[in-house]
Amino acid sequence: MRVFDRTWKQIEDYLGYDDRIVLPLGSTEQHGYLSLGVDTILSERVAVEAAEPLGVPVLPSLPYGLTPYFAAYPGSPTLRAGTYLAVVRDLLDSLYEQGFRRILLVNGHGGNAPAGGVGPEFMRDHADAQVLFHSWWNGPRVWPVVQAIDPDASHASWLESFPWTRVPGVEIPEGHKQPVDPGAIRVADPATVRALLGDGSYGGDYRRPDADWQAVWDAGVEEVRELLASGWR
Amino acid sequence: MRVFDRTWKQIEDYLGYDDRIVLPLGSTEQHGYLSLGVDTILSERVAVEAAEPLGVPVLPSLPYGLTPYFAAYPGSPTLRAGTYLAVVRDLLDSLYEQGFRRILLVNGHGGNAPAGGVGPEFMRDHADAQVLFHSWWNGPRVWPVVQAIDPDASHASWLESFPWTRVPGVEIPEGHKQPVDPGAIRVADPATVRALLGDGSYGGDYRRPDADWQAVWDAGVEEVRELLASGWR
Amino acid sequence: MRVFDRTWKQIEDYLGYDDRIVLPLGSTEQHGYLSLGVDTILSERVAVEAAEPLGVPVLPSLPYGLTPYFAAYPGSPTLRAGTYLAVVRDLLDSLYEQGFRRILLVNGHGGNAPAGGVGPEFMRDHADAQVLFHSWWNGPRVWPVVQAIDPDASHASWLESFPWTRVPGVEIPEGHKQPVDPGAIRVADPATVRALLGDGSYGGDYRRPDADWQAVWDAGVEEVRELLASGWR
Amino acid sequence: MRVFDRTWKQIEDYLGYDDRIVLPLGSTEQHGYLSLGVDTILSERVAVEAAEPLGVPVLPSLPYGLTPYFAAYPGSPTLRAGTYLAVVRDLLDSLYEQGFRRILLVNGHGGNAPAGGVGPEFMRDHADAQVLFHSWWNGPRVWPVVQAIDPDASHASWLESFPWTRVPGVEIPEGHKQPVDPGAIRVADPATVRALLGDGSYGGDYRRPDADWQAVWDAGVEEVRELLASGWR
Amino acid sequence: MRVFDRTWKQIEDYLGYDDRIVLPLGSTEQHGYLSLGVDTILSERVAVEAAEPLGVPVLPSLPYGLTPYFAAYPGSPTLRAGTYLAVVRDLLDSLYEQGFRRILLVNGHGGNAPAGGVGPEFMRDHADAQVLFHSWWNGPRVWPVVQAIDPDASHASWLESFPWTRVPGVEIPEGHKQPVDPGAIRVADPATVRALLGDGSYGGDYRRPDADWQAVWDAGVEEVRELLASGWR
Amino acid sequence: MRVFDRTWKQIEDYLGYDDRIVLPLGSTEQHGYLSLGVDTILSERVAVEAAEPLGVPVLPSLPYGLTPYFAAYPGSPTLRAGTYLAVVRDLLDSLYEQGFRRILLVNGHGGNAPAGGVGPEFMRDHADAQVLFHSWWNGPRVWPVVQAIDPDASHASWLESFPWTRVPGVEIPEGHKQPVDPGAIRVADPATVRALLGDGSYGGDYRRPDADWQAVWDAGVEEVRELLASGWR
Repeated sequence: MRVFDRTWKQIEDYLGYDDRIVLPLGSTEQHGYLSLGVDTILSERVAVEAAEPLGVPVLPSLPYGLTPYFAAYPGSPTLRAGTYLAVVRDLLDSLYEQGFRRILLVNGHGGNAPAGGVGPEFMRDHADAQVLFHSWWNGPRVWPVVQAIDPDASHASWLESFPWTRVPGVEIPEGHKQPVDPGAIRVADPATVRALLGDGSYGGDYRRPDADWQAVWDAGVEEVRELLASGWR
Repeated sequence: MRVFDRTWKQIEDYLGYDDRIVLPLGSTEQHGYLSLGVDTILSERVAVEAAEPLGVPVLPSLPYGLTPYFAAYPGSPTLRAGTYLAVVRDLLDSLYEQGFRRILLVNGHGGNAPAGGVGPEFMRDHADAQVLFHSWWNGPRVWPVVQAIDPDASHASWLESFPWTRVPGVEIPEGHKQPVDPGAIRVADPATVRALLGDGSYGGDYRRPDADWQAVWDAGVEEVRELLASGWR
Repeated sequence: MRVFDRTWKQIEDYLGYDDRIVLPLGSTEQHGYLSLGVDTILSERVAVEAAEPLGVPVLPSLPYGLTPYFAAYPGSPTLRAGTYLAVVRDLLDSLYEQGFRRILLVNGHGGNAPAGGVGPEFMRDHADAQVLFHSWWNGPRVWPVVQAIDPDASHASWLESFPWTRVPGVEIPEGHKQPVDPGAIRVADPATVRALLGDGSYGGDYRRPDADWQAVWDAGVEEVRELLASGWR
Repeated sequence: MRVFDRTWKQIEDYLGYDDRIVLPLGSTEQHGYLSLGVDTILSERVAVEAAEPLGVPVLPSLPYGLTPYFAAYPGSPTLRAGTYLAVVRDLLDSLYEQGFRRILLVNGHGGNAPAGGVGPEFMRDHADAQVLFHSWWNGPRVWPVVQAIDPDASHASWLESFPWTRVPGVEIPEGHKQPVDPGAIRVADPATVRALLGDGSYGGDYRRPDADWQAVWDAGVEEVRELLASGWR
Repeated sequence: MRVFDRTWKQIEDYLGYDDRIVLPLGSTEQHGYLSLGVDTILSERVAVEAAEPLGVPVLPSLPYGLTPYFAAYPGSPTLRAGTYLAVVRDLLDSLYEQGFRRILLVNGHGGNAPAGGVGPEFMRDHADAQVLFHSWWNGPRVWPVVQAIDPDASHASWLESFPWTRVPGVEIPEGHKQPVDPGAIRVADPATVRALLGDGSYGGDYRRPDADWQAVWDAGVEEVRELLASGWR
Repeated sequence: MRVFDRTWKQIEDYLGYDDRIVLPLGSTEQHGYLSLGVDTILSERVAVEAAEPLGVPVLPSLPYGLTPYFAAYPGSPTLRAGTYLAVVRDLLDSLYEQGFRRILLVNGHGGNAPAGGVGPEFMRDHADAQVLFHSWWNGPRVWPVVQAIDPDASHASWLESFPWTRVPGVEIPEGHKQPVDPGAIRVADPATVRALLGDGSYGGDYRRPDADWQAVWDAGVEEVRELLASGWR
């Protein structure tokens, strides 16, 4: 259930019998021919679908993350890493104070990875709490599904193209893009990143049949649900 | 237009002829019988409606703000003030770097007021930029409308009760709540805040005829639009 | 009583029967034809006079605050907002540790408003403490007095001109200054602020008969005293 | 000249022909039978007297510094070291922006020593600026004077007892206090510090003839003046 | 070449014809029967051997990193994540200022991963600089070598047991340890981590023939060297 | 004993009967004709030799400190002061959590002095802990030894020239260097510092007979050992 579809009293009632909650971590950044909100939309939606049958509340996705390398693509504001870690830490501290003890961070953006370091630090200070950081699109259950369909699938390819991340009126090209050399991107400043990526995709097919993204999505939802159900100690 | 309904290329095209953008500032916190997302939902929606005819892009509302006093109401995570100011500053810096020069912060939560201090500091460092901080519900055009209808209107009263902030299945009480003494709340720790507020409303009618909230909303949208159109130097 | 007129032993004795203290918040910044110390001088003096009959100690005013918009006026050093909040938080924490439980922040400068966000955060962490943030010149008792005398009264006008804030040898002009458009100042960088304000006053009469500033002062002292006496829970 | 005795215009005029300024660094903390404001009062006064004949402006002393070890003595609020360094750095940055290039920090409190690390960092970033950190009471000219009078002179002894730091109505004891072992204080927590120090003095005579403190004061003023006149590159 | 085996003049000469440097990132933390310095020792040594034939200078390994989860194992001090990122950022900024433009971070500890977020942020601010973050033991060339020998190899197993990381007088057990469930460790507080790990190893053989660790080492050195030689844009 | 020569189990055993530990603080920075690692090498070595007979563990020296004034000498990366204080504080907090109660900081670099402010703050928060900050080369026992040999001895002179800080193949000049005016260095930006210092030495003999540095070293080791043995409360 979305926290935004609830009142505080309903959350309080929930805390009477459960202590899990999901905090999705998104970003606002270029995704080629797709919405600038891909990472925020997907991280929240996959969490909501996964949590639904379990009745676990899902907070709104944090729509700003770490994306300094996309600075040359308008519409991609970034936080600084130190600020980002502080945001995640503050939210964990505050959720703990309100009674939550098992917090699943469902991440939708590779660049947010440093936030994975917050959980262990938090658990050192709150020994009775548990934090899981999970990037939904490349977990052990999802990634093989992706690879089996298109080993070049990546940022802004069909892998992130869902009915809910496409932009009305924007045509997505046909065809396959040769993967951009990850080694080159790794050491590139923003202008070079843009020169390398052009339209923004890292490579792979731009479009795939519905069954393909559906398979990825189903695996993603299932994996998040499983973690939510039994990823705890 | 919502940034999430656009691709980076569309934002880049926009920057070819305009440099305005809106960043709504919300919160996730108790609102009595209403959604925990009231401040996030309203700040974003009022901005989107206001910006629509002007074609100015609206970023996703930042759904976490400053609400330490509601710590005893589950579902109200807060950031620390220092972190919050850093988030707003980082976003302004990053938007500036991407070419935006006139940034309107549409605030939906009274507790976020310290973020009003970020703009002047930012403009000292970027003399060609302009930042406006506007709390949509109590501006000079909206507040008289509210007062004329119900002088006790406040947090979690009818003033924040819109079709898009009500929670399906949750009945909102009839009647009028005596305003809670603001002087008492001001020096209250979270447990005392809850003892004082009970259901979460600060006072005023819980429900009002549709025409009333519509009048507030129309004034709110109009005032944001006006600022967006001509609040600049 | 001024803390500076006391020894630690006297403060310890005081803590044996009371737990209130006042921390004035000032600034060093342009005030037109008046002293650069107006906000520091007034915040401390109004606090001292208010506290006198109550026997509550008054700390020295913090003479540096948030005034980035006056950067083009020499003699107006500013802190960054994040630093300022940290200073106020540190002082509250330290005063708490020393036994104070009711702390009144008497603010003398509009730009310091973000510090108002520190108290609620502090009270979340120290549930048995109370913090009040009060801007002495525009409280509910003082502002009507000001308005009745000169509705244009503002920064660096007669409203801040007291025998103890005037600079020997500097003549204050006669006459009335048309208020500078606050909407224009709001989005102005420091150079533009100076271009708009010129001599530094925001508008209103430069000088008024003694009875006028005395009326403001009396109301200011009285309001601070009342808060100090009965503004607590 | 005190900055507080000037208008911004006078400071601007001054900047037309000079670029020096003094920022005194004080503290609010126990000083035995003396005022809690000793370090603030002395750092500002010695600077004002020293600067007078040179016409250099003196800012108000920063009345809060680093004094965590006196936490058990009421009336001794401390900043955290990280905050303190940020305050000093912000002020240097802001003064630089306003045109000052030679800034003398006149320190009145031993615990503030870490602020001495700010200047070199600041000069790395502003190669045309100069910052001097000087503790007025133990400089190469003052300390021999002190030692010749009473080698045990220290914190809260006659060395800090001036007509302007004594508290009306508080009698200062006669006699000599055996110096408290500095090695013991060095590793002491606040309660132990108090147990060791008792009344707050570190040792030495409590009172001395006027000629003695006058000699110290004269040397202090002279040394600050000399640095201000010719301590630059 | 080790920076510590050089004078500043030799480094200045080097900067006349090259702009590469290596900063190894270590940790001080439990490694079962091995030295508490494993990550620091290996990150520095692999870098030194790799850089030798290229003549690139290698800084001393930063011996403190992020290891909050090992808090229950004495000898494992950790930094907080925010501090750690600031350290790495400061060093990059300072090295840049001194003329280095291609900086390779050779990481020796999995927990330091959040530092991988610093490079992109740094390259946004310094477009002509390049930063590579490489964890030496699980790169694309090394990991297959490890896996081929013992798929369970992990923290504190033979994989980190080299003549230069063993502790004289401490016997390393024979045999194979069943890998501890990584999912369990992931959500464990420090006490639980210790309960799960016992002696500190995550699993795999404790000891292996010399040829095995030599194969890993050779691959590690080779991969670092290759990155140093041709991992740039 | 070096912590790096031990396993966690050995440190745990040690904590069963003692609670002392040494954290050396170094720097990587120009030392004229000597190694860039002088401060790191000496702070660690003097600590190790001093601690040996007492059986107290010595952590690896922190090889990065505060040296902004040497920015014009390649190979001298610096941390910012705020970061440095956070590093030292984090390590103290973490060591405390692991059971250490008496922590000796053996400092090898004058510029690190601001870290001396961390201990008192830490002891305020942990009343049962003790922290000693000791700069090994100018303590009350060592400095007279130095002065008796060469009163001009200073940074990068024979005073820091030991067999373990000389660089193979680099010839150290004969002769005496006139001390550079410390007052001039104090207000110098990095380029001026270099202009003043030239080769990097602050003055004194470049070389001295072995007996001289041996006398300094012996006094240094002895003084650290004494502090470690009996510098506590």
